[in-house]
Amino acid sequence: MRFPPRLEQLLQTLRRLPGVGPKTAQRMAFHLLERDREGAGALAAALQGALQYIGRCRSCRMLAEGELCSLCTAAGRDRTTVCVVESPADVGAVEESASYRGLYFVLHGRLSPLDGIGPAELGLDGLAGRLGSGEFREVIIATSATVEGEATAAYVAAVARACGLRATRIAHGVPIGGELEYVDGTTLARAIAGRVAVGDTDPETPR
Amino acid sequence: MRFPPRLEQLLQTLRRLPGVGPKTAQRMAFHLLERDREGAGALAAALQGALQYIGRCRSCRMLAEGELCSLCTAAGRDRTTVCVVESPADVGAVEESASYRGLYFVLHGRLSPLDGIGPAELGLDGLAGRLGSGEFREVIIATSATVEGEATAAYVAAVARACGLRATRIAHGVPIGGELEYVDGTTLARAIAGRVAVGDTDPETPR
Repeated sequence: MRFPPRLEQLLQTLRRLPGVGPKTAQRMAFHLLERDREGAGALAAALQGALQYIGRCRSCRMLAEGELCSLCTAAGRDRTTVCVVESPADVGAVEESASYRGLYFVLHGRLSPLDGIGPAELGLDGLAGRLGSGEFREVIIATSATVEGEATAAYVAAVARACGLRATRIAHGVPIGGELEYVDGTTLARAIAGRVAVGDTDPETPR
Repeated sequence: MRFPPRLEQLLQTLRRLPGVGPKTAQRMAFHLLERDREGAGALAAALQGALQYIGRCRSCRMLAEGELCSLCTAAGRDRTTVCVVESPADVGAVEESASYRGLYFVLHGRLSPLDGIGPAELGLDGLAGRLGSGEFREVIIATSATVEGEATAAYVAAVARACGLRATRIAHGVPIGGELEYVDGTTLARAIAGRVAVGDTDPETPR
């Protein structure tokens, strides 16, 4: 059925959210209009505030409110290491792991020539400039373990080596707590190919 | 990790949507900010437009942009029958079934004295006034088949009978296409208790 035009408009725009189909959009719209009008107003205001003020950090391309993000300006971070990731969500994931205290560089995608995504679109010229400044020692490449992610990793590694820096790739293999029999073959093959001599796994000295 | 304040704000407000947890909110926020800023603006505008202009129809309490909803003002509907439902989504579902051409009355809930929801909160005094006007012949009660839905149905039926109208309840039983062995026991018990003599199922003459 046709709902009032502004309700239809709301349903249409809610469906632009990832993972939201017609039924979910209806549920969300009715919830907001019937039970949480205050929430609807807050969401509209938050969207506008985010659109107006959130851009990319000039240095690492992370989402930021000012010129620089809170990670680039934070005191006490290791400014000789940069971790290259594909998305702001990946920065969140690495930070959650509490295993890394260096800086980041966010590509906002991965190399995909067929889709017109080349090094320029990923800000890799800017990264090359930053790496060439002499402040860094190591580039940790944490792009995803897909064909495009690996291609991107190879490109970033070449850029890093051209600047005379050590390029490392995060390890891929069997997840911690994962039972071998349920791990997919590709991951297991990678884990076997990437095996390390027992006693060689000190994270401070990557191979 | 802490994202910029306005991004945190957006994540918080997205989580007010039904079925949206922290991960989904992050996915939505990043999608909007990175890939669909136009969609984010459209959503903010649609939310504000809906909040400002969408209220309840004066006659049937359906969501409407003006005084009356499109169903109450539509030509060619049967104005002697009213179908009582719990929510605007239910109106959508009945309309989709294309099996009903009368008017509606939306309760926006069901009787639940423990939660402070009595007849007044459901607009049942307004319904009584409308039913007493003499324009109706039949009240079809399509509240849900829950304890509270049945209590609400009984109340609405009493109101209808007090106005000298025929009150009917939609049939409950085995869904069409449903295989008997997979139907839950309560539904099956209801289907057996509500069995009809073969040949008696003409929908125009409810028992």
